Amino acid sequence: MPKLAGLSVASRIDDIEPFYVVDVLTRAKQLAAAGRDIVHMEAGEPDFPTILPIIDGAKKALDQGATYYTDALGIWPLRQAISDFYQSTFNVLVDPKRIIITPGASGALQMCALTLLNPGDGMLLTDPGYPCNRQFVRLAGGEPQLVEVKADDHFQLTAHALEQAWQPNTVAAMVASPSNPTGTSLSEDALTQLVTAVAQKEGVLIVDELYQMLFFNQQPQTVLNLTQDAFVVNSFSKFFGMTGWRLGWMVVPEAAIEPIEKLAQNLFISLSTPAQYGALEGFKPASIKLLEERREIFKARCDFLLPALKAMGFEVPCQPDGAFYIYADASRFTDDSFAFCHELLEQTGVAVTPGKDFGVNGANTHVRFSFTTSLEQLKEGVKRLGDYLR
Amino acid sequence: MPKLAGLSVASRIDDIEPFYVVDVLTRAKQLAAAGRDIVHMEAGEPDFPTILPIIDGAKKALDQGATYYTDALGIWPLRQAISDFYQSTFNVLVDPKRIIITPGASGALQMCALTLLNPGDGMLLTDPGYPCNRQFVRLAGGEPQLVEVKADDHFQLTAHALEQAWQPNTVAAMVASPSNPTGTSLSEDALTQLVTAVAQKEGVLIVDELYQMLFFNQQPQTVLNLTQDAFVVNSFSKFFGMTGWRLGWMVVPEAAIEPIEKLAQNLFISLSTPAQYGALEGFKPASIKLLEERREIFKARCDFLLPALKAMGFEVPCQPDGAFYIYADASRFTDDSFAFCHELLEQTGVAVTPGKDFGVNGANTHVRFSFTTSLEQLKEGVKRLGDYLR
Repeated sequence: MPKLAGLSVASRIDDIEPFYVVDVLTRAKQLAAAGRDIVHMEAGEPDFPTILPIIDGAKKALDQGATYYTDALGIWPLRQAISDFYQSTFNVLVDPKRIIITPGASGALQMCALTLLNPGDGMLLTDPGYPCNRQFVRLAGGEPQLVEVKADDHFQLTAHALEQAWQPNTVAAMVASPSNPTGTSLSEDALTQLVTAVAQKEGVLIVDELYQMLFFNQQPQTVLNLTQDAFVVNSFSKFFGMTGWRLGWMVVPEAAIEPIEKLAQNLFISLSTPAQYGALEGFKPASIKLLEERREIFKARCDFLLPALKAMGFEVPCQPDGAFYIYADASRFTDDSFAFCHELLEQTGVAVTPGKDFGVNGANTHVRFSFTTSLEQLKEGVKRLGDYLR
Repeated sequence: MPKLAGLSVASRIDDIEPFYVVDVLTRAKQLAAAGRDIVHMEAGEPDFPTILPIIDGAKKALDQGATYYTDALGIWPLRQAISDFYQSTFNVLVDPKRIIITPGASGALQMCALTLLNPGDGMLLTDPGYPCNRQFVRLAGGEPQLVEVKADDHFQLTAHALEQAWQPNTVAAMVASPSNPTGTSLSEDALTQLVTAVAQKEGVLIVDELYQMLFFNQQPQTVLNLTQDAFVVNSFSKFFGMTGWRLGWMVVPEAAIEPIEKLAQNLFISLSTPAQYGALEGFKPASIKLLEERREIFKARCDFLLPALKAMGFEVPCQPDGAFYIYADASRFTDDSFAFCHELLEQTGVAVTPGKDFGVNGANTHVRFSFTTSLEQLKEGVKRLGDYLR
């Protein structure tokens, strides 16, 4: 049997940082297999299964033979339903043509990078921020330009910081509101200033609105109320609870529809058909009511967990206003968040995500707590952490 | 409302050729809307809906709450089932660890390009061949190096042609067996010689085996019987009839597992969970029996269509031995296959795919007929074409 040569892997692979939390999770699984009871506060997905109306919608579509390719940009009724959602929730008109269904927000983020970046172009990203964004920029041959964001600014990019950070090769900036890992949002004023600042730079603003509908006290917002020229990324994973279905969407300026269509046809051919018909049911009033009840549960968990963490010595200088994360300053306990996460896991059986996964700014003194487990589990986790850290 | 600057789209988008068949399809839809009866012989997907056991498997999994993320490389039982399939069908042992579930073959093809190509590296591709491969190579910053393949060689890359075409920057070669658009396969000898030739070049061989199980007379084959160092791409879309579910797989050398895992985590996070549980049912004996019946139907259609096309003046110098395509030389009728396809559509209501979609070698004198419609429809199409072209 002839032997092919030793594999030479492209250097871009070496540039991809590992997910440090996977290391924590692997150890958590070993401990669980050995009988330890693990409290999971590391997951970036809702603990609830997908709501029944969505499941039933998908099952019904399957029974009716919805197993073929769809249009590369998605089924029209779903694009229309998202347009209706923007109108009813935000009072903004968005032409369904500009709404593009994607294989998760991941597909949308990749298409943003491939559409906007020539090799060597820069994109401003927040630090801390969602780690895959750096990889999407690099895969497009671009340069991720990390901008340190501070608790005082809700861990968000400000217009001033953007102007300071913008380089000659910068063509775009990406923000997330609410943000992963911080759960904090841009105010309408701050977002308006960002839109203006990016326009002055003749750049493009990308807004990750994945956690938009998981808001706690304030009103939800979309950048589409301020401009139709931004790229908006959204997902059915978080508010709609469809992580395992791999479905998201993006809203793009009119001029980007055709480029994105070419990309989508070549990269993906099509989206999951049962997922699309399921998602369609997610916009029905009865579904929204169920999803809003879940949001209230997330809020209640946050109301419990936030003061509990503070009481045991974590600092949370800017509290989350949405999503399901608390980004906690653990500098009282550690200057090596990765080692600290392993220590907490071994000593208390509580799994949390090291800040190291989200950038370099304060990464070694921060950890992310997810409240994607029951209040009972959170209480158990808090008890164990409190006993250990006291 | 501030206005962002005019959109500047990355130049890679301009490099993507359109799918010419989409133009044909758009016109076909207009004609159908105006009351014309269209015979569809252009589609690259089976006309059958997904088989019931797969649908029922997905529905059952949904009922049991299988709506969460899975491992980025796929659920273990499915990887194991694919390994069992290689053993029972090809008598080859493939460690399930080396089997990676992907979002369609598209996801697998993209990961091949991103893993193997540094910017500037070349990959040999057949002309004609599957058009998206060129784009995946370009998106990785690589150079698609098209190699003309001839009917005498079953429209396949030969070891000799590979040696001639291999450039200093070439690092890999991709073949498809059976091929889209030709439906023709590499013989075991030809494949063995290719494996040896690529090894001598210290390169990597990628084999698209999407249509492997849609074979007509000969035995099916896999390159895994010859080497464990190739990258193998496969899909649940064609034989398993799951186009709209977006699920495929790849088999990679041991050394590529970790790089691919990093890519998959960042690019896709996870695969469709209901699709994975559905696909698992596809390997059950009762499912395979249903799918083999469908293969016989494709074969019967080919047995009808091939002589009928020849009788009306199309040349098919190398007849298909699998898949569901006939790549026909229409040079008796045209030297502009795109215009010819439009002409056929307007005059006869029969939709076929212009050769132009598959490369430049003979592209203007070839068209691809798909037998992905009923024998009745094929007969109707043949009658109309025969009347018009006579």
